[in-house]
Amino acid sequence: MRSETAMPKGMNDRPKAWKRHTAVLLLVAMLWWAGACMAAQDPLPSWNDGATKQQIENFVKKTTTAGSPDFVPPEQRIAVFDNDGTLWAEQPVYFQVFFALDQVKAQSPQHPEWQTTEPFKSALAGDLKGVAASGEKGAAELVAATHSGMTTDEFARNVNQWVSTARHPKTHRVFTEMVYQPMLELLHFLRDNGYKTYIVSGGGQDFMRAWATAVYGIPPEQIIGSQGELKFELRDGKPVLVKQPKVALVDDGPGKPVGIERFIGRKPIFAFGNSDGDQQMLEWTTSGDGPRFAGLVHHTDAAREWAYDRDSKVGKLDKALDEATAKGWTVVDMKNDWKQIFPPEK
Amino acid sequence: MRSETAMPKGMNDRPKAWKRHTAVLLLVAMLWWAGACMAAQDPLPSWNDGATKQQIENFVKKTTTAGSPDFVPPEQRIAVFDNDGTLWAEQPVYFQVFFALDQVKAQSPQHPEWQTTEPFKSALAGDLKGVAASGEKGAAELVAATHSGMTTDEFARNVNQWVSTARHPKTHRVFTEMVYQPMLELLHFLRDNGYKTYIVSGGGQDFMRAWATAVYGIPPEQIIGSQGELKFELRDGKPVLVKQPKVALVDDGPGKPVGIERFIGRKPIFAFGNSDGDQQMLEWTTSGDGPRFAGLVHHTDAAREWAYDRDSKVGKLDKALDEATAKGWTVVDMKNDWKQIFPPEK
Repeated sequence: MRSETAMPKGMNDRPKAWKRHTAVLLLVAMLWWAGACMAAQDPLPSWNDGATKQQIENFVKKTTTAGSPDFVPPEQRIAVFDNDGTLWAEQPVYFQVFFALDQVKAQSPQHPEWQTTEPFKSALAGDLKGVAASGEKGAAELVAATHSGMTTDEFARNVNQWVSTARHPKTHRVFTEMVYQPMLELLHFLRDNGYKTYIVSGGGQDFMRAWATAVYGIPPEQIIGSQGELKFELRDGKPVLVKQPKVALVDDGPGKPVGIERFIGRKPIFAFGNSDGDQQMLEWTTSGDGPRFAGLVHHTDAAREWAYDRDSKVGKLDKALDEATAKGWTVVDMKNDWKQIFPPEK
Repeated sequence: MRSETAMPKGMNDRPKAWKRHTAVLLLVAMLWWAGACMAAQDPLPSWNDGATKQQIENFVKKTTTAGSPDFVPPEQRIAVFDNDGTLWAEQPVYFQVFFALDQVKAQSPQHPEWQTTEPFKSALAGDLKGVAASGEKGAAELVAATHSGMTTDEFARNVNQWVSTARHPKTHRVFTEMVYQPMLELLHFLRDNGYKTYIVSGGGQDFMRAWATAVYGIPPEQIIGSQGELKFELRDGKPVLVKQPKVALVDDGPGKPVGIERFIGRKPIFAFGNSDGDQQMLEWTTSGDGPRFAGLVHHTDAAREWAYDRDSKVGKLDKALDEATAKGWTVVDMKNDWKQIFPPEK
């Protein structure tokens, strides 16, 4: 039944107009309410209020506000992030080393010589300190031995299988849950503001691409890392790419600006790292004109994560920390700036 | 004056409603008209009607129609294009060689030995046949001598300067106007349908990135080519990347799938080339599951462009042509399939 049938003649059109008016008012109210909600909703809820959070928010605001003298057009809003120690944890050794250890165990029957040579001997004994003692060089040897000889598809399958089952020795969580909740929020916040987010990491590119898209929401073509040569082959008439033991790019230290130029071809305006391996990336990013943001995650939280910097074998932060102080880069004090470290367990 | 003031009492509201009604009708008509126009507008006007055009249109339609068994989600709509001979002309030699020749002339006072050694001797004499006789190896030598030793910024400036002034010896047009109009339309057509377009070329990555974004609408991060090593340096405290004479990737032949995997990390579903250097890229693209498109530009138009294939020194098309026939790849007959070759002169 239409209500206006009861209305006096001549006023026939009024209720319709009134209804329309009400509907418009309601819509306006809803839009206002939605807008207010969005404004009230903190895009970085795991960051404590303070100077660090303010610096990030201010930078994003000034680079995305039309008419601002610091406005940056969307195609130039390139943000690069280191991975180990910046987006996920890296202690007691880079997580990719745990993957390599498990691969060593699986392949050891074919390699009797590993029983007596480091870092393989320690790897097989599950002796993390022994592996760590061989330093980044040892880690690189392990990686080479376990990251070549198979096709790219086979390797991706190995990583996926490992990532879905292996657990961290201290937290007993799967490694993909040892990502930093505040950094996940930062990645989203930047993308919501028209930024294109990239990973630029010393870690293996193929290793990261196997899981990082699902975890960080970053597509494979925006994941740049250290990489080996690939060889094109036809196997039973079907083309494959075989991972070679020869290094093509060490995407660390001075290799990071090289990786950025090669893959992106533009200078980022926003960069986040956590160690001396990120120093050149931050220097490169801040060397351009216009607004630039350089950030470092300082691991200061021994209770909830780890506390380390100048003397650490993994993720050493020394020269870059001095440069951050000298140049006014943003330094995240993990203990005080982060309300929460890891996302809730699934 | 409001027209309803002249209307009889009681009908006071009607004209407003009538006006509203008319406005809505007009809007609907305009939308219908715009829709009809868009449907009628041929997205590939420089392609003659026929099997080739049909194959392209059918592929795009079936991969982008929701509910189609061949529907491909947007993030997997990766299209890769060779550049030389596919997007722009490549005769009598790759255009990058003309750039190298001009750079040789500019630098020759510092290199007296070039007066007596090939391909430099021919380059300085403007003897294109002499340069061509040194083949792709000679071209590579020229490229190395003229594409390293400077910073990436300096190199980009050199290329931009050259591209805005140098002219093709036969057509006397600037090189960026010797791009293929039908391929420009194809790039737009694909992007309008949610495809991400990439260049995967044997040509120099830094050389292409200097001008190809403006010409093809493809951003630098989607331009993949042959590339040299880069070295990070601080000059007066300012970081620069210096181009090294050492090759990092020959993005040609079997190097193309390597470049694709390294930079994109996904298998394309659509690939276009024109020579044997594109064979492995087409094999790689068509080796995945689901709908796949492989296309070759066959240079058959001696009058409007050039006619060459199996015996050409530049852009040789022999094995890939046989494979195209055997596997049913799409072969563009330039003479018959293209209404127009180059865009109108500016």
